[in-house]
Amino acid sequence: MGTPILVSEVGPRDGLQSIKSILPTEQKKRWIDLQVAAGFREIEVGSFVPAHILPQLADTAEIVEYARQIEGLTVAVLVPNVKGAEAAIASGAHKISLPLSCSETHSLKNVRRTHEQMIEAATAIAELIKGQPEGNRPHFEGALSTAFGCTIEGDVPQAKVVELAERLMKAGCDEVGLSDTSGYAHPVQVKQLIKAVRAAVGEENLTGLHLHNTRGLGLANAMAGLELGITTLDSSLGGVGGCPFAPGASGNIVTEDLVFMLEAMGYDTGVDIEKMIDLRKEVAAMLPDEEFYGFLSEAGPPKGWRGF
Amino acid sequence: MGTPILVSEVGPRDGLQSIKSILPTEQKKRWIDLQVAAGFREIEVGSFVPAHILPQLADTAEIVEYARQIEGLTVAVLVPNVKGAEAAIASGAHKISLPLSCSETHSLKNVRRTHEQMIEAATAIAELIKGQPEGNRPHFEGALSTAFGCTIEGDVPQAKVVELAERLMKAGCDEVGLSDTSGYAHPVQVKQLIKAVRAAVGEENLTGLHLHNTRGLGLANAMAGLELGITTLDSSLGGVGGCPFAPGASGNIVTEDLVFMLEAMGYDTGVDIEKMIDLRKEVAAMLPDEEFYGFLSEAGPPKGWRGF
Repeated sequence: MGTPILVSEVGPRDGLQSIKSILPTEQKKRWIDLQVAAGFREIEVGSFVPAHILPQLADTAEIVEYARQIEGLTVAVLVPNVKGAEAAIASGAHKISLPLSCSETHSLKNVRRTHEQMIEAATAIAELIKGQPEGNRPHFEGALSTAFGCTIEGDVPQAKVVELAERLMKAGCDEVGLSDTSGYAHPVQVKQLIKAVRAAVGEENLTGLHLHNTRGLGLANAMAGLELGITTLDSSLGGVGGCPFAPGASGNIVTEDLVFMLEAMGYDTGVDIEKMIDLRKEVAAMLPDEEFYGFLSEAGPPKGWRGF
Repeated sequence: MGTPILVSEVGPRDGLQSIKSILPTEQKKRWIDLQVAAGFREIEVGSFVPAHILPQLADTAEIVEYARQIEGLTVAVLVPNVKGAEAAIASGAHKISLPLSCSETHSLKNVRRTHEQMIEAATAIAELIKGQPEGNRPHFEGALSTAFGCTIEGDVPQAKVVELAERLMKAGCDEVGLSDTSGYAHPVQVKQLIKAVRAAVGEENLTGLHLHNTRGLGLANAMAGLELGITTLDSSLGGVGGCPFAPGASGNIVTEDLVFMLEAMGYDTGVDIEKMIDLRKEVAAMLPDEEFYGFLSEAGPPKGWRGF
């Protein structure tokens, strides 16, 4: 078997939060079931934000409670603040991510918090986790968003990202991750930033990338990360929610294309390609008003590859 | 300045041969002019095939004669056989490529020639070039198509590609190139095949890749090539002619996205990004029935990058 790579499916969170359609709770559960059946081992199932802000994710607690019953699945959620973390812990999520936007302008616009306030929140969440009984302490990731540039500020200095990574680790995060929220990253930058952040926080504390495909470089950037030993890559089924051309849209890299690239390159994702293609079809049918992106599902795997 | 990379525009050949629209000669000339004005230094302007087979390229001789007047431009053409090479030499093309499909089944279907017959053709073309007066000897590339797999045969053994590369060089080619005709390549394979072919023919005799984006891995594959010192990458403006989902369509990597990736990474393509985006608009207007692909032209460059 090749080196294992964890493809963390973020469609039910990052995908659904970016679209107008509200997927019924039962269909979300079905999506999660299908994803697990295809071999995925981590899913970001929702976000603990007020329902009036993201009605698409209002059922996150119920979804977490459902998903955590599935053996072998890591149930991840996003939390914007301490209140969200409390709800996440109460629901039994295995992994929580607090996004900290490296662009302070973006942070203020997105969650109305300064960097100082976000670091305070990270500290409080880490304390909260520490106070939980053993077995109920979720893994806590500080997600450095807009790490490769910001649609408002433009360039984000590498030194700023490194500083915030250090502060998140000091605040008590178990690890940090780098997010290309704006789809600005290129492969050389991916490598440079990984190296710089790791030099500050240690190699073992930066293992994941969250990449977007807004300018078509998503998989090239993923490859750059892999070459430096990144082992977790976020992606979204069909790039759902991510019209890469619409302002503000997510444009996550497409799960199907990423998994195909990884498996073709000899990495082990644990994913069954055929089941993944079927999964896409079924989820696409649940969201008839949304466009599903990606190449593999249309072109199919190469002739003769694994019996195709 | 960064390391120079030659982006060889193949839209007027590989793009136009794959679509139904026939672009008038004057518009082709305008396309070439715009491409040169944006900073491109090599264009594959056509193919010397019988007009009844590819009426879209029937004016190749006139186009070559026009393009070779443009200072600093390398005028490349494709030839399927000795007769095509004679016409190419007569027209004054600077560079001729003979495609040899590594899948013999594909070769028989595409040009009705065995490998043996193609090597004979390569030998005859090399002799023909040698017999020309100095100054009228085009650079002769043996283009190893279906080098990464074939839609008919499936897997193409690496040893076969290496053997054909050696035979092409022995036949008198100035260099060989690798073409992912079927869009089957992945980054690890790109590196492996480059290394294997170079070990046989010498590093200086394999400097170019012709990649397709059929499964979304085009730019990741380009990056793999760059990491091994590849200095010429073929691409097509707007990926024209390449609906990546239609069987048989080319699906060339998109020039705009490739140039953006290269320039962002610090390579020097010589291309002006703004002029390139304008060029795309004007050429797209010439081909109203064709879809133009790519991400950069829609999303635009990152905010603040080079003053954008």
